[in-house]
Amino acid sequence: MFLLFTDFGWQGPYVGQVKAVLASRCPTHPVIDLMHDAAPFRPCEAGYLLAAAAHWIQPAAVVVAVVDPGVGTERRAIAAAVDGRWFVGPDNGLLAPTINSVASQRVFALPVPEGVSASFHGRDVFAPAAAELAIRGCIADQHEITDWIGQDLPADTNKIVYIDGYGNVLTGQRVATLPRGMGPVVAGQIIVGARTFADVAPGVAFWYRNSLGLVEIAVNQGDAARRFGLEVGDSLRFQAII
Amino acid sequence: MFLLFTDFGWQGPYVGQVKAVLASRCPTHPVIDLMHDAAPFRPCEAGYLLAAAAHWIQPAAVVVAVVDPGVGTERRAIAAAVDGRWFVGPDNGLLAPTINSVASQRVFALPVPEGVSASFHGRDVFAPAAAELAIRGCIADQHEITDWIGQDLPADTNKIVYIDGYGNVLTGQRVATLPRGMGPVVAGQIIVGARTFADVAPGVAFWYRNSLGLVEIAVNQGDAARRFGLEVGDSLRFQAII
Amino acid sequence: MFLLFTDFGWQGPYVGQVKAVLASRCPTHPVIDLMHDAAPFRPCEAGYLLAAAAHWIQPAAVVVAVVDPGVGTERRAIAAAVDGRWFVGPDNGLLAPTINSVASQRVFALPVPEGVSASFHGRDVFAPAAAELAIRGCIADQHEITDWIGQDLPADTNKIVYIDGYGNVLTGQRVATLPRGMGPVVAGQIIVGARTFADVAPGVAFWYRNSLGLVEIAVNQGDAARRFGLEVGDSLRFQAII
Repeated sequence: MFLLFTDFGWQGPYVGQVKAVLASRCPTHPVIDLMHDAAPFRPCEAGYLLAAAAHWIQPAAVVVAVVDPGVGTERRAIAAAVDGRWFVGPDNGLLAPTINSVASQRVFALPVPEGVSASFHGRDVFAPAAAELAIRGCIADQHEITDWIGQDLPADTNKIVYIDGYGNVLTGQRVATLPRGMGPVVAGQIIVGARTFADVAPGVAFWYRNSLGLVEIAVNQGDAARRFGLEVGDSLRFQAII
Repeated sequence: MFLLFTDFGWQGPYVGQVKAVLASRCPTHPVIDLMHDAAPFRPCEAGYLLAAAAHWIQPAAVVVAVVDPGVGTERRAIAAAVDGRWFVGPDNGLLAPTINSVASQRVFALPVPEGVSASFHGRDVFAPAAAELAIRGCIADQHEITDWIGQDLPADTNKIVYIDGYGNVLTGQRVATLPRGMGPVVAGQIIVGARTFADVAPGVAFWYRNSLGLVEIAVNQGDAARRFGLEVGDSLRFQAII
Repeated sequence: MFLLFTDFGWQGPYVGQVKAVLASRCPTHPVIDLMHDAAPFRPCEAGYLLAAAAHWIQPAAVVVAVVDPGVGTERRAIAAAVDGRWFVGPDNGLLAPTINSVASQRVFALPVPEGVSASFHGRDVFAPAAAELAIRGCIADQHEITDWIGQDLPADTNKIVYIDGYGNVLTGQRVATLPRGMGPVVAGQIIVGARTFADVAPGVAFWYRNSLGLVEIAVNQGDAARRFGLEVGDSLRFQAII
């Protein structure tokens, strides 16, 4: 199974061409769109969301992750083996929170063939590499590296990593590592916690452990990002509820 | 074949996670996105659209339908066998127009496992149930029920059930059950009928039997919803054309 | 492998129904969305984008292409064999740039069955034909034609054929056939060429050979269409750089 995680959006022939490469080389492997609206041009924020989603990704899956403002420059292409799954993408920090989440990992630099498009490594570099990993379990010209970008990133971030279509605000803070009794502070006040949307009245803001295990700020039947003027990349403070 | 019918939208990692569960458990079954912009939080309106679409769904398909404002509450999860297809979703009326469309149906309450996410039953309850139905044809802990929500709903509704990306306005009224000579009244006047877009001049409003068999109000190369200020949930009157 | 190229958008149950027809008849063939936001109602512009994308489409693929403002009229449905791939769609010029790109081609008129929807030939005519072509390699009632629409279209166009979600402006001019030293003129000035986004400073407008081989006008981390007020269908002049 291939999973695609990009900032390409659903518009244009971009995602489709990546999928066509995968399907033509591995016609029996399902190709799943995990998401295509990861934080545009922000590999760091997108990377924390990918790491949270990675907990739910099956063994033997090959993930193609592309948030790649440096495409066409000298940045490397890498593939990382993490808990029996492969993650393929640019070496710009996007994969780092996922790689760093396990104690022992193997990361390989991928060859970038001559003559490929300077602007679309998703189709010309990452998808062919992913197909080869799915078929052969390794890539002919890969070589192992230990200096991938982002090794020093913390395991959680208090930044906003994604805002979904309903205006729900996802932070990079896992609930599992948040001290009990803490809550996020927005516009000077601590947001109350709840179990899920149905537990608060319409219009009420709350935070909850979302389905990826992250601290998410939401408004029941409302738009939390708009109400509080929040954007991807903003940092939130967490504070003890008295 | 799995078909997904939700109000999740295409944004975020939600649809992708549902598909990953299905593909990992049933890798040889195609997973088709029927639509992901069903009327948000409105299971009733969405349900009439699903019932119309259901006429076109093949035998042996398993449909995962999620418009579920009550996720995380005590509302039940159900699976319905309707004409050789399975429909899986919340017991909130969403499946009722489909279930009610056949004379004999079987509806089962599904177990909700301990410890699943309170906000994402699409991934944690409905998709696993759908996979099990596709593989085994039944679910281990299901029990038949006769009191599903929405048994008393009429077979048609004069409400607007969906507005598409071009502003075309879909009602829940099937043409097959509309008396001949009737037409929808919008802004005080009866809309004329036509066979299809190409039969009226650009800018002209008309109604027609759409590809799902429903009364749809459209403007050739225009936006009917905006022109008439129509929204999902609005009721339309039908009147005899003199 | 099936590839879908339409102007349906991602909203509503339209793409999903086309895919359900294909998947039910050919469950082992992957169905790939190439794109669904081709220039709406503009088969000519969309056709040049399809022809550019066709270079990347594998042998044995069956492409279902639908930009079809004349659906329900007498316009013919056609299937074209081009370099070992099938292209199925309306006979309105959409397929012409692709068909014309090869020296010898075969084009067939498809039967339109009685009683199909007047508004949704994608589901009722093109998808069934595509499935039959994938399975049998031909269609029972097809007959060869030599008078398809658009045979006289030039191989390139200086029109804007697509604007993507980031505001990048794709022309129908292939770089391979553009004389060296020429550049597109926008708002009275020649746009400079570059290899890719990372080669110019943020905010700088440039043109480059995009991943489909077309002249594309972009602004690094900006919106070229909005900056220059460009729309699909606009013609651009190309001029020698002094």
